[in-house]
Amino acid sequence: MRRIAFDAMGGDHAPEPELDAAVAVLREGRKDLGIILVGDEAQIREGLSRRGASPGPALLVHHAPDVIRMQDHPSVAVKGKKQSSMRIGFDLVKAGEAHAMVSAGNSGAMLACGLLVWKRLPGVIRPGIGTTFPTLEDDCVLCDMGANVDVQPAMLAQFGLLGAAYARTMQGKPRPRVGLLANGEEESKGTELTREAHAILKRLPGDRHEYVGYIEGRDIFAGKVDAIATDGFTGNIVLKTAEGAAQTMVEMLKRAFASSPRAQVGYVLAKPALQKFKRRLDYAETGGAPLLGVDHLALICHGRSNATALKNAIHAAARYLDKHLIDNVAEALAPVDSGQSQKLRHMRAKP
Amino acid sequence: MRRIAFDAMGGDHAPEPELDAAVAVLREGRKDLGIILVGDEAQIREGLSRRGASPGPALLVHHAPDVIRMQDHPSVAVKGKKQSSMRIGFDLVKAGEAHAMVSAGNSGAMLACGLLVWKRLPGVIRPGIGTTFPTLEDDCVLCDMGANVDVQPAMLAQFGLLGAAYARTMQGKPRPRVGLLANGEEESKGTELTREAHAILKRLPGDRHEYVGYIEGRDIFAGKVDAIATDGFTGNIVLKTAEGAAQTMVEMLKRAFASSPRAQVGYVLAKPALQKFKRRLDYAETGGAPLLGVDHLALICHGRSNATALKNAIHAAARYLDKHLIDNVAEALAPVDSGQSQKLRHMRAKP
Repeated sequence: MRRIAFDAMGGDHAPEPELDAAVAVLREGRKDLGIILVGDEAQIREGLSRRGASPGPALLVHHAPDVIRMQDHPSVAVKGKKQSSMRIGFDLVKAGEAHAMVSAGNSGAMLACGLLVWKRLPGVIRPGIGTTFPTLEDDCVLCDMGANVDVQPAMLAQFGLLGAAYARTMQGKPRPRVGLLANGEEESKGTELTREAHAILKRLPGDRHEYVGYIEGRDIFAGKVDAIATDGFTGNIVLKTAEGAAQTMVEMLKRAFASSPRAQVGYVLAKPALQKFKRRLDYAETGGAPLLGVDHLALICHGRSNATALKNAIHAAARYLDKHLIDNVAEALAPVDSGQSQKLRHMRAKP
Repeated sequence: MRRIAFDAMGGDHAPEPELDAAVAVLREGRKDLGIILVGDEAQIREGLSRRGASPGPALLVHHAPDVIRMQDHPSVAVKGKKQSSMRIGFDLVKAGEAHAMVSAGNSGAMLACGLLVWKRLPGVIRPGIGTTFPTLEDDCVLCDMGANVDVQPAMLAQFGLLGAAYARTMQGKPRPRVGLLANGEEESKGTELTREAHAILKRLPGDRHEYVGYIEGRDIFAGKVDAIATDGFTGNIVLKTAEGAAQTMVEMLKRAFASSPRAQVGYVLAKPALQKFKRRLDYAETGGAPLLGVDHLALICHGRSNATALKNAIHAAARYLDKHLIDNVAEALAPVDSGQSQKLRHMRAKP
């Protein structure tokens, strides 16, 4: 049985959506999937009993007296609050008592735990958060979506390789197309940072991915590439912009449908199709984003995740474990460890 | 009569959409608006006659033997091709023969012409491109959308002030809300660059704008602020991402409507409302983006602009002239010239 350490105190509205999600997974009765709820034991037990559920072999409770807050400095999870639900979750995975960690808490603190409680995979300069989203053609993965805001060219280039490893493993694409996000397609575009990263990516061997060069914002959803490399500042803004644009469009659409009786009738008829469309855009459907480049599996969820998003993140964690995502990322980087990663560092020093 | 110097050779498909746009404006018969088509005279005259139009007082033709290409280095417009349509357009405005310049050409070259053929307004460190887009509440202006990719904190802070001046003048908002785009709302978020710019914006006097701090990608379309400050790399990616997301959504929506006969009937009924909605999202409706911070009016249009977008840009230029946009930007920065701008430079030097 795969066990997921699940931070019951992580999200903005914890522990209610977390408990809803855990109980929902429990009630699916899957034999291959167990959850360890980590957090205030009394609060968790009371919340479970309110839902008519109780701990058992498929739903363990592990007490953690402390909580990492959104405003806490990331290092707190490593140096200060060692008894927090988040930190204990990482400890459980490290000790082999759980196979993956899922939390909707402070993502900076998650990164710090991944780096310092766990460790980087050989060859990785900095881990990045990989997140998938739907495009017109297929799903696409973007790395980094927020772990590293001030980055170096070699890190940025490596985010492309981490994304490619994800696309190979989870989407079965043998040679994913990798693009570097910039403000234009021409080589003269971009910042000093992207131009150096571009030079590195062009020189790397491309037998397991295809580097297509710069891509623009408008290419993201057109399905032009399978993996996108960007720094965590830009990645975070891009994804939240797309999320906001989608929400705004759905709202504008609602207003358009409400604008005339004729359009209202049209809405009623088209409603099932529209709901399918809305579901495709809903971040809650994808659940959590994996931290790529550390030696175990951690899924970072939106702080505002509802129960559905959290449940989907637990399912996603199980899928990643089934596909051996971390082993595949490690293996993708390992053969070039003393080569590629050294080369990456070298390229940074001598651009 | 206001005269607009209009680069007939600027866009990706020039001169056809340019000529369509010019003829469309001519046929409106406005007494207050004239166009000077700048470009290859023979080609322009032939194109006009094919459209049953001919030059006259409201539609002058000014010959320019050369063209700035998209792949040309921006400095070419200033130092190399001095007889290009773009450069001559800027020269005509400088000489007082035209009041504004509109082009869908190389935006880096437009910036170079603005900086070196014209000049910066007193107090401006670097001009930025301001672009407006619809939000749920109202229109919002973002500066910079692509003129400056590697920026300094003081420049970034000033983009907020340029945006605020635009919102005051064009949207009649006496004290526009200004936000700085980042990857989270907390002060601890952002890059070194945004944290320094944030510190500068917090210290500036806020009698003519309200600085609300960091805003996230998802706030952009929610109408949380009237003006957004960001560097040109991020601004360009954000706007193209939103544009791409909107196009993708419209496409997904079409597929949803086509998915069942019932939804198809719904579509037919809702079509007029949906078209209104689509029009709101169409960049062609807004036309061009003004270069803010130089001493004359230049509108930068999308390279792929169609005739509608270009026609709207000419109309927008006329509106900006009517509202004295450049004077208002100058006046907003001028009283603090030896104060605020000096202070901005100083703050950069001593963060």
